[in-house]
Amino acid sequence: MTDSFNRSGASPPQKTIAPTYEGDFVLKEPLALECGRSLDCPTLHYAVYGRLNAARDNAVLVCHALSGSALVGSWWPEIFAPGAVLSLEHDFVICINMLGSCYGSTGPGSVNPETGEPFGPDFPLVSIRDNVRAQAQLLDSLGIRKLRLTLGGSIGGMQALEWSILCPGRVERALIIGVAPLGAMGLALNHLQRVAIEQDPEWEGGRYLPQKPPRKGLSLARQIGMISYKSAPLLEERYGRNPNRNGEDPWLEDRCGGLIGGRFDVAGYLDEQGRRFVERFEANSYLSIMRSMDTWDPLRGFGSAKEAFGRIKAKLSFVGISTDWLFPAEDVRLFAEAVRAAGANADYREMESSHGHDAFLAEQTELVRLLQ
Amino acid sequence: MTDSFNRSGASPPQKTIAPTYEGDFVLKEPLALECGRSLDCPTLHYAVYGRLNAARDNAVLVCHALSGSALVGSWWPEIFAPGAVLSLEHDFVICINMLGSCYGSTGPGSVNPETGEPFGPDFPLVSIRDNVRAQAQLLDSLGIRKLRLTLGGSIGGMQALEWSILCPGRVERALIIGVAPLGAMGLALNHLQRVAIEQDPEWEGGRYLPQKPPRKGLSLARQIGMISYKSAPLLEERYGRNPNRNGEDPWLEDRCGGLIGGRFDVAGYLDEQGRRFVERFEANSYLSIMRSMDTWDPLRGFGSAKEAFGRIKAKLSFVGISTDWLFPAEDVRLFAEAVRAAGANADYREMESSHGHDAFLAEQTELVRLLQ
Repeated sequence: MTDSFNRSGASPPQKTIAPTYEGDFVLKEPLALECGRSLDCPTLHYAVYGRLNAARDNAVLVCHALSGSALVGSWWPEIFAPGAVLSLEHDFVICINMLGSCYGSTGPGSVNPETGEPFGPDFPLVSIRDNVRAQAQLLDSLGIRKLRLTLGGSIGGMQALEWSILCPGRVERALIIGVAPLGAMGLALNHLQRVAIEQDPEWEGGRYLPQKPPRKGLSLARQIGMISYKSAPLLEERYGRNPNRNGEDPWLEDRCGGLIGGRFDVAGYLDEQGRRFVERFEANSYLSIMRSMDTWDPLRGFGSAKEAFGRIKAKLSFVGISTDWLFPAEDVRLFAEAVRAAGANADYREMESSHGHDAFLAEQTELVRLLQ
Repeated sequence: MTDSFNRSGASPPQKTIAPTYEGDFVLKEPLALECGRSLDCPTLHYAVYGRLNAARDNAVLVCHALSGSALVGSWWPEIFAPGAVLSLEHDFVICINMLGSCYGSTGPGSVNPETGEPFGPDFPLVSIRDNVRAQAQLLDSLGIRKLRLTLGGSIGGMQALEWSILCPGRVERALIIGVAPLGAMGLALNHLQRVAIEQDPEWEGGRYLPQKPPRKGLSLARQIGMISYKSAPLLEERYGRNPNRNGEDPWLEDRCGGLIGGRFDVAGYLDEQGRRFVERFEANSYLSIMRSMDTWDPLRGFGSAKEAFGRIKAKLSFVGISTDWLFPAEDVRLFAEAVRAAGANADYREMESSHGHDAFLAEQTELVRLLQ
C-alpha cells in the first residue's frame, strides 16, 4: 500500500469499511518455496467482508501491495461503493496479508520454529507464486473453489495474474492494475531502497531488535519509494519550488551550517512520509516483500509465454496509469498484449491521472469508473 | 559531471585534450555572498585551452556540472573536434572549477582562514550567481571583457544563463543545455541524496576527517543521482532484468539470508558507480554544490522576468534532451519560451537521445551536431 497522504489536507479523510471477520489461517503443512527452502506451517492473516453464499460462488480475492494489509476496507474503500467494483451485499471479499509482511502473516519478525528466535535475515525468499499457493490453501479451507474475481494494484496485480496462471480453473475474472514485470528502472529504485536500509548501522544485518529498528534507513527507503509512486507533475503542482510550509528557508543556513539549508516543501513532505512509515512498518518486511516484487517473473518454470499465459481461463483486464513511471503505462499495455498474444482473453485500459503509480489508491473513484 | 561509464565497455574510451595552462586565481577581496555571508579571498582553480588573441575577443567560458572539474578537455573533448563547437586554433577556452568543489577551488575541504581548520559544515551557501561574480573577477584579471560564447550543461547551463543576465555586455552567445530551474521532482531527488549523506554516521555532521569520509552515504547519494541522469529506456536496454554479470543470482540467497538476494545487473552497475564516485569526490562538496543547484532562481532579486531576462544581450540557445527526467525537455522548452517572452533573443533545440540527462556528456557527437 502506498500513501496518498497530503499535508495540505486536500484529500478528504477516507471512510473505512470494517471487515466481517479478521483472523489467522495456519497452513497444515510446510510450504515448499520456489527458492528451494520451505516455511514450516506459516500463518496467513486475512480479513473478509460480506458473506459467502450457499453456492460459494460469490468470492472475490483482493491482493494488496507492498506495505498493505488484509484490511482492504480501510485502504481501498471506494471500490466497495454502491455500483462500484465490489458489493458488500452480494460479494464475499477476502484479502490475505502477504507472507513476509508485518501485518499478521508469517514474516521476518515471526518466530522461526527451528531456532525459537525471530527469523530476521533467515526469512526465506517467498515469491509471488509461493504466496498464491499459500492463499489457495486458505481458500480451500473456506470451501471456496472459484473466485468470481481477483484484483490488485502493483504487487497485488502480480498476485492476481499469478492466480490466473496457476489456478486457471478457479478464476473467472482478474483485474491487474498498474503492474508488469519490473523493468530495470524499477529494479534500480528497489535496489536504492535496499541499500538505504542495509547501510543503516541499526539494521544490524537484519538482526535488529524490534525496539531498535533501522529507522533512518527505512525512512530513506520509503522516501525513495514515494518519489517512484508519485508523478513529477503532481509533485510540481503540490510543492513546486515552495519553501517548506513550516517556515524553513532554503536560503538560510539552519542545518549543519552552510552545507544543508532549510528544506523545500517537497523535502518536508518526503521527510514526513518517511517518519510516518517507520511508525507502521518493519524494515525486514519491506526488504522481504521488495524481493518478492523484484523476482516476479510469470514465465519462470514455463517453456514459453504461450505455455504460461495460454493456460489462463479468466477474462483479464490490465490497467495502465498514464503518469506511472514505476510501472509505465506503455509497459503494462505491451505486457497485456503479450498475454493476449499467448492466447489469453485480455483487454487493456488506461487510467488518465496525474497521480503516478499511486493513482489506484489516490484516485479510487476514477479507477472505479474505468473498471465499470 | 555525470558519468557515462558502462561496464559493458560499449562506450569507446574518450580522448583527452590537455590544457594550455592550469592554475589558481585568488580573489583580491572577500567575496560577498547572496546568503549574507562572505568568503575571504577564495581561490578559483581554472584551466585554459588555446591562446587569447591580441584583441582578447576570442574567449569562451565553459561551465561544468555538479561533480565536474576545470578540465573540460577531459570530460567534454568532442566539442573541441574540428568543426565542432570550440576551436583550439581560434578560441581561448577557459573553464573554472565551481566554489564548493573539491577540484581546486575553495570548498568545504579548504582551510577556513577564520579558524585555521577546514570549513566543513561552516562552508557557506555559494549561489550560482556568487560563482559567476567570482568568475568575472578571474576574467577581469586576464583582461577578458567579452566572451564570444559561454556554455554548459546542467548546473553549467545555470551559470551560462546567469552570466548572460548579470554581465549582459560581456556575453555574445550562450548555450544552456539540459537545464531549467529545478522542479519539485529534481528538488526531491537532491533531498534524497542529501539525506543519504547526512544519515551516514561517518559524515559526523560534516566534520569527518578526510581519511574517514562517509563513503556509504556518498555512494548511495551518487546512485540516486545516477538514476536521475539516465533514462528508463536506456537502463532497460542495457540491463533489463538480467542478473548481475558477475554471476549473482537474484533467486539465490547469497546476502543476509533471504532478505537480500543476488543483485540484478542494474544494481551491480549502480553499486559500481557509487564505488567509483567515492574515490573521486567529497561528500561535503557534493552537498555544497547540490545546494547551489537547488537554490538557483534567476529571477531572485529582480522585480519580474522582464526585468531579469530583458537585460540579456547575448543570443541564447536552450537545449532540451528528449529523455531527460531530471530537467525534462518540456521544462527547458517552456523556460526558453519564458526567457524569450521577456525580451531575450532565445531559441530552443531538442536533442533526441535515449540517454537521459547524461546525453550532453554521453552523446557529445550528437550534441555537437545539434549546436552547429
